[in-house]
Amino acid sequence: MALEVLASPKPGNVDRCHDYPETRVEHFLVSTLAARASLEAAEAREAGLGRLIEGAVGATSCHAGGNTHFGAFILLIPLVYGGDVRGACEAIRASTVEDAIAFYRAFALTNVRVNAADDLDVNDPSAIDALRERGMTLLDVMVHSADRDMVAREWTNGFALCSLGARALLADPEPRTAIARVFLSLLAAELDTFIVKKHGMAVAEETRGRARAVLAGEESVESLDAWCIERGVNPGSLADITIGAIYLALEAGWAWDS
Amino acid sequence: MALEVLASPKPGNVDRCHDYPETRVEHFLVSTLAARASLEAAEAREAGLGRLIEGAVGATSCHAGGNTHFGAFILLIPLVYGGDVRGACEAIRASTVEDAIAFYRAFALTNVRVNAADDLDVNDPSAIDALRERGMTLLDVMVHSADRDMVAREWTNGFALCSLGARALLADPEPRTAIARVFLSLLAAELDTFIVKKHGMAVAEETRGRARAVLAGEESVESLDAWCIERGVNPGSLADITIGAIYLALEAGWAWDS
Repeated sequence: MALEVLASPKPGNVDRCHDYPETRVEHFLVSTLAARASLEAAEAREAGLGRLIEGAVGATSCHAGGNTHFGAFILLIPLVYGGDVRGACEAIRASTVEDAIAFYRAFALTNVRVNAADDLDVNDPSAIDALRERGMTLLDVMVHSADRDMVAREWTNGFALCSLGARALLADPEPRTAIARVFLSLLAAELDTFIVKKHGMAVAEETRGRARAVLAGEESVESLDAWCIERGVNPGSLADITIGAIYLALEAGWAWDS
Repeated sequence: MALEVLASPKPGNVDRCHDYPETRVEHFLVSTLAARASLEAAEAREAGLGRLIEGAVGATSCHAGGNTHFGAFILLIPLVYGGDVRGACEAIRASTVEDAIAFYRAFALTNVRVNAADDLDVNDPSAIDALRERGMTLLDVMVHSADRDMVAREWTNGFALCSLGARALLADPEPRTAIARVFLSLLAAELDTFIVKKHGMAVAEETRGRARAVLAGEESVESLDAWCIERGVNPGSLADITIGAIYLALEAGWAWDS
């Protein structure tokens, strides 16, 4: 989490060279420090995935910078719990309705942008009754959200993007600057679903198109960054994916500092 | 520790905008994350000050960036152990010969620049025998070093500079940028003893003089930063003092994020 937020340039996102007025790199690092006990609890399997995510979101809501790592925990908690992708998928398949309910409770602890055009709106208290009535597990919730949320989608596709990102990090000849490069590649390859929710599909597509132009040498990364910042376009879901990728790369022995 | 390393501009030191080739902001943040268990052990008074410092130095030598927080631990461990300056001074007065020996062992765990023109050279294995023969406690060691090491001096003067820095932070009307301002004031007020050890008295005096010129509006902080970096002048002891000041300010309720 610390390596991800520092990596720069990451167009549109908080990085070593850029804050948002309400959310600064210090908030992300306070959140990183505050997350430790929750990640250790995940490693020790002290609770189910839902309660672990709820605990991590609660522990890292200690600063005034708003939501910093909710999406990251949706990826990191099962990965740390399971030890690797296979173990994470096993834990996910065993998730329960209680996990889903705890996950919904986590939303009350922070301000997270979600797609509310849904009968399982996280801001609607009756949604928890609906989860119980339908017997939806936390995996069911993620399946339900997978088409419009790329973080939820990782639960349903074997952490495909996180794994791709990890392999890209491991293969990069210059580890010290690899994270920003992998982030840009993800931005050029995928539509960030956080941008879709916040700004709509057209802006998400334009962002992806501009990232492709940067890779093609037709636009500078600084110009894309300025374009994003001017519009408040922050690819937050791809930042979460990048954190998952860094975790998997480190677990595979990535020498980030070489 | 995280707030200190990110604060910028800090002339000559690693900050949000500047790395050294061998020591980067990531190394400081890895060290910050790795320090938690040792600081918790200090809060719980699980061992004496010497072993606690030894443990912290060992735990944070997990990265390839060299020494990052040795001096900071000399200040933070007693402050966290004691809870405040008065409690820290009480713990310091109770320090033992075994604390001194553990502290000397800590030097073997990292590369720290020390003044070797001394019969208690930390690189000399017989120094530990000398500590025992003379019955020197860890406080005695700090008294012995106080005239040439401003971090050791804090043990002998009631954490005077840390406390001054803390009050300056608490009084600053713009908390979000206060750390860099307080650092610059300390640099203008004091000779950094780390610079003295590394570059000699004349360079330390010139650094202090240039910091005074920045405060007087006669030189820009950027120009002082460039001057320091060109010569490898990094005011490392004042960075440690600043960490102690931030800790005391936070303990006193400093709203760093307001």
